[in-house]
Amino acid sequence: MQKQRSVFYLSDRTGITAETLGHSLLTQFDGIEWRRSSVPFLDSVDKAHELAERINQAAHIDGCRPLVFSTLIDEEVRAIVQQADCVIYDFFGTFIDSMEQELQQKSAHAVGRSHGVQNNSAYFNRIAAINYTLSNDDGVSAKNFADADIILIGVSRSGKTPTCLYMALQYGISAANYPLTEEDMESMRVPKILEPFRNKLFGLTLSAGQLHRIRQERRPNSRYAALNQCQSEIQWQESLYRMAGIPFIDTSNISIEEISTTILNRSGLRRQLYGQ
Amino acid sequence: MQKQRSVFYLSDRTGITAETLGHSLLTQFDGIEWRRSSVPFLDSVDKAHELAERINQAAHIDGCRPLVFSTLIDEEVRAIVQQADCVIYDFFGTFIDSMEQELQQKSAHAVGRSHGVQNNSAYFNRIAAINYTLSNDDGVSAKNFADADIILIGVSRSGKTPTCLYMALQYGISAANYPLTEEDMESMRVPKILEPFRNKLFGLTLSAGQLHRIRQERRPNSRYAALNQCQSEIQWQESLYRMAGIPFIDTSNISIEEISTTILNRSGLRRQLYGQ
Repeated sequence: MQKQRSVFYLSDRTGITAETLGHSLLTQFDGIEWRRSSVPFLDSVDKAHELAERINQAAHIDGCRPLVFSTLIDEEVRAIVQQADCVIYDFFGTFIDSMEQELQQKSAHAVGRSHGVQNNSAYFNRIAAINYTLSNDDGVSAKNFADADIILIGVSRSGKTPTCLYMALQYGISAANYPLTEEDMESMRVPKILEPFRNKLFGLTLSAGQLHRIRQERRPNSRYAALNQCQSEIQWQESLYRMAGIPFIDTSNISIEEISTTILNRSGLRRQLYGQ
Repeated sequence: MQKQRSVFYLSDRTGITAETLGHSLLTQFDGIEWRRSSVPFLDSVDKAHELAERINQAAHIDGCRPLVFSTLIDEEVRAIVQQADCVIYDFFGTFIDSMEQELQQKSAHAVGRSHGVQNNSAYFNRIAAINYTLSNDDGVSAKNFADADIILIGVSRSGKTPTCLYMALQYGISAANYPLTEEDMESMRVPKILEPFRNKLFGLTLSAGQLHRIRQERRPNSRYAALNQCQSEIQWQESLYRMAGIPFIDTSNISIEEISTTILNRSGLRRQLYGQ
């Protein structure tokens, strides 16, 4: 029988930090079924008491203490949660004292600093990157390539759009993309329209089998989705990348987060952090 | 004179977790200028030695120890970093032992579990949500509203698109949006096309001043961007939300992350976590 265990992510605000770190730790333990609850905006004593009760109920049902990952800052709220029947991994409490000592400075103990809008111009930049990326999806307005921080290329369904969006949203990168087409395949060279921007190009590729599965979802049993069609497109695009010296990444088994950070890392683009 | 302090975010993989938590802790300390370096994919002994040297140089230049936020899992790599002249906030090392004890189970100590693709169907769902959101941006195909998890409404430039994209990318929510127009303003009711989906509607609003500033960036000195035009649109949409009992949120001073998590929280939509 698989073990069950309740998990709570607690935060004064969005809960993104608590979820991210908690999830990262939980993935190190196999064979347990986690019953996760996100509790963002835990910002009053009343809510804290209610939550403590929920935790106690879960402990009773599971027959063991729930794991609680917390980025709570408010001391009163934290004190109430600490009374509940659980084991708390308190990110803020664990590190803040040692940081205060190292920096010889008291911390602000202020809630909501991490995902709030503190810097209006950074916020505008981020929105601008998102708008840029949306309006340059699938190479519809190539005249704007000059403004791109990076231009992702690859055949249809190679993952260009989600990767561009992630880079814009998470890192404020103006990411354009250009879909390699069958016409491009006829010549064995970088499409003319991209020539002036050679140093901004980054190629995506994936296994022919995975491209086939993805295209099948979109247009089942079409020539477009056929395995041999996928094989020849993949083979062609990888030869092009190698011949033209375009850096590229195989996205077959990695997430959008990993694709994006790998590309930024290899292309030396500065990662901006927006309220993260 | 403002203090300067070097900060390093270290990770075997993407570095997203280390950056998120590190940033969250740093925001609690005012008046220090942080010189941040992200070091993702720190996955070899050679890279670790190189990094240790960079840290030592930074310590020498700053005249004080850099702060290092680490989610490194590999023990050999961690051991090398620990030799450098820095103070390490080691998320993995700090919590994993206590978790092993609580769960009475050894952890996998395996790298790259947190942002990798472990679950193909979750990955497909996420891509589907992104595609849905893109193809339903600005109400272009209202016939698909039936498939939406949520439909954001608001006047032009009220922040619908970035919020929808964030919800799709971060949480796998199929988020459509519908821009309220001047024609809608003529009647004081929910647009007909949205009537069947009343329970999925969520309104965005913001201060007239901020809407004015955002529209000015787009079409300077137009009637569209004029402050009095913005005031009347905002007034009208907030009256509509109240009259029709549509939940809404004022986005003036909060980030896309906060807007998204608040909406999910209030509408009771399940947050999915993808490799976070």
